[in-house]
Amino acid sequence: MRTINIGLIGFGTVGVGLVKVLKSNASLIKERLKGELQIKAIADKDIVSPRSVEVDKRILTTDVEALLDDSEIDIIVELIGGDEPAKTYILEAIKKGKHVVTANKALLAEQGEEIFEAARRGGVDVYFEGSVGGGMPIIKILKEGLVANRIQCILGIINGTANYVLSRMSQEGSSFQEALSEAKRLGYAEADPAMDIEGIDSAHKLTILAPIGFGTRVRLSDLYVEGIAEITDRDIQYAREFGYSIKLLAIAKEVGDEEIEVRVHPTLLPQDHLLSSVSGIFNACYLRGDCIGEVLIYGQGAGQMPTASAVAADVVDLARNLLSRSPGRVPAISYWPSVKRIRPMEESQSKYYFRFSVVDQPRVLAEISGILGQNDISIASVIQKERRELDIVPIVMMTHEAKEMAVRLALKKIDELPVVKAKTMLIRVESMI
Amino acid sequence: MRTINIGLIGFGTVGVGLVKVLKSNASLIKERLKGELQIKAIADKDIVSPRSVEVDKRILTTDVEALLDDSEIDIIVELIGGDEPAKTYILEAIKKGKHVVTANKALLAEQGEEIFEAARRGGVDVYFEGSVGGGMPIIKILKEGLVANRIQCILGIINGTANYVLSRMSQEGSSFQEALSEAKRLGYAEADPAMDIEGIDSAHKLTILAPIGFGTRVRLSDLYVEGIAEITDRDIQYAREFGYSIKLLAIAKEVGDEEIEVRVHPTLLPQDHLLSSVSGIFNACYLRGDCIGEVLIYGQGAGQMPTASAVAADVVDLARNLLSRSPGRVPAISYWPSVKRIRPMEESQSKYYFRFSVVDQPRVLAEISGILGQNDISIASVIQKERRELDIVPIVMMTHEAKEMAVRLALKKIDELPVVKAKTMLIRVESMI
Repeated sequence: MRTINIGLIGFGTVGVGLVKVLKSNASLIKERLKGELQIKAIADKDIVSPRSVEVDKRILTTDVEALLDDSEIDIIVELIGGDEPAKTYILEAIKKGKHVVTANKALLAEQGEEIFEAARRGGVDVYFEGSVGGGMPIIKILKEGLVANRIQCILGIINGTANYVLSRMSQEGSSFQEALSEAKRLGYAEADPAMDIEGIDSAHKLTILAPIGFGTRVRLSDLYVEGIAEITDRDIQYAREFGYSIKLLAIAKEVGDEEIEVRVHPTLLPQDHLLSSVSGIFNACYLRGDCIGEVLIYGQGAGQMPTASAVAADVVDLARNLLSRSPGRVPAISYWPSVKRIRPMEESQSKYYFRFSVVDQPRVLAEISGILGQNDISIASVIQKERRELDIVPIVMMTHEAKEMAVRLALKKIDELPVVKAKTMLIRVESMI
Repeated sequence: MRTINIGLIGFGTVGVGLVKVLKSNASLIKERLKGELQIKAIADKDIVSPRSVEVDKRILTTDVEALLDDSEIDIIVELIGGDEPAKTYILEAIKKGKHVVTANKALLAEQGEEIFEAARRGGVDVYFEGSVGGGMPIIKILKEGLVANRIQCILGIINGTANYVLSRMSQEGSSFQEALSEAKRLGYAEADPAMDIEGIDSAHKLTILAPIGFGTRVRLSDLYVEGIAEITDRDIQYAREFGYSIKLLAIAKEVGDEEIEVRVHPTLLPQDHLLSSVSGIFNACYLRGDCIGEVLIYGQGAGQMPTASAVAADVVDLARNLLSRSPGRVPAISYWPSVKRIRPMEESQSKYYFRFSVVDQPRVLAEISGILGQNDISIASVIQKERRELDIVPIVMMTHEAKEMAVRLALKKIDELPVVKAKTMLIRVESMI
């Protein structure tokens, strides 16, 4: 029985998790793989601090180059994250003919193209299941399970922190700040949660998923990205009255035959849809394929062991490729000749939720509806609340399908009205479900 | 670019679906596979009746042997279903060195071991994603996505007909018979729906899934199987009052280190669990792995195009194996040396829902609780309904954790009481979620 040797770069949370799973489930993995996995070397800047798993000290090193130069190592697992030196290490590993597993979403989102192209030329594989939703094998499902489908949409709750905050606001009626503090206290949010809250992390992940689904290059700069910091507990309450939940959604979908939309923003979803039931730190992706129909995968988005599980699955997959001498079996990504245009946000259309903050005067609703009407935005329903805060009353409204450009123009005009006392809140409604 | 040749046996619903998807998504599959798929021959008893897809008449044949003998055919897709001649054809294909794709759950459940062993010895692959939940790639997820996990449980809603019937009873308050008639009218149930309603179909599928998860042989005769025909709309109503839904669940789970339980029966699930939201003809599997935690996959259980999507994914997987010369890359099934005992149903334990049909007398509840108490079954809550039908009143009860053997003994005694007028209804509660 052949042994596949692994070199691990980065002995932090996920690195320790990987060592744990390969150790505790060694015999089980051996049975399934019909081969043995061995961690031959672990490189980290810090090899002194105690970790929650025991390893033979002789395999620890601070010398990444020595690990990359070790000709017996077949697979390099990069788990240091961030841009540099991760990128250099990965490119060096590729140059030395080693296969690579990484969970580095930020790097892949920003420089995946260069890395995948280097791997393709070098005849080695780069696997990255851990980069999106560790606890749900979404990349394998998209690439392999749904391989025969034209993908129609990918709708993902792919940031656990943001989902925890929104769930808590919804379940406990907390304010955004209270929910965020609670997330930090529980370790679900980092000290600086900007990447999660502002939608950047979801955008990174969508930049990885969308090209797999649609065969088209998608760059971070192609995405419209809006975070959840402006959502109030009242918006969640009003949305519920209209029959909707609010989720931070990563959206990639076909529009017609030649365009896709790729965006991340708070989104109204029907309350009885499965995605609305995804709460707390959990992640889920809803996919639609032309043959398979609707598919949903749900699991933990991050965390030590779920991410280690995804990384270990990639290692086993690469080990199978090595054992059967079939590198390049499933390409990291294949761009198709028929490139799709990424439709600019201004050209998109959807239904909208608006919350206007106005003074309590008889003609206000007429004025607002007038401007909406001039811009071909028709109103589906309105809640005008009695509640009054410092003489400001909310008018909450759901529209029929309208054009983003028209909405922006209309809201600009409305927000300039003397009776409107704060910036109007706008949340889009997802129409694919 | 190499072409992979496919021989299709069975040109019925799913066979036609396969031809459709390989045709309509040909260019997309070619890009993803970096190879071309071609259906070289289609065998069926009936090659005259019109189908909803156009094929070159020259590839149609009634001569299965000719197709199996065609040395240019790489992959045989068996879609005739049932026992014979499907089994003979598959074994012949294996003998001739061809890889096989099948969606034949009944055959695999009953004779999978022989088929997989023949394939192993012949050095060819048998893939079978379409045999369980066509619209959710559950086999790939279990075998590959969760490969590094010790599986703790598989809980599946894997029969769309039964789920449709229970959903309709729950949503519309229909009786079992009304819901079943509606399912037939809509084409969701066959003229003879016994396999679906009695849990046999779910048992077939669980017999395929459980060995993958637990590495242990599981035969149909090992399973405890109970259908949904005795569930009444009132049970659904009472369960809801206790906070539960009722689903036909296929259950395979670890109990301790050395045993598994494998069973199919109506089951109470907490109403706020995702599985409770799986309604209509949809299927879902809830998995728990020791690293990844909870995972749920949801999709259509059957139907022409979802099943064709699963079969086509297998064909692409095998084509990748052929293109990279790596047959046997992922074994059909690997039984581990450490065989687990399948715990007999009588030794299982769970919480229970009971509905007693009794005459309205003051001492009845005391008599029943007395017998339960003597058998160490303790009551968690009781609903005693005013409603009376022909002098029979229901007493509905949830118990704490109790032993199946004790429950059977107690119910036998209770059902012999003169005040008990009908067989007591018993539904188990799933404790893994």
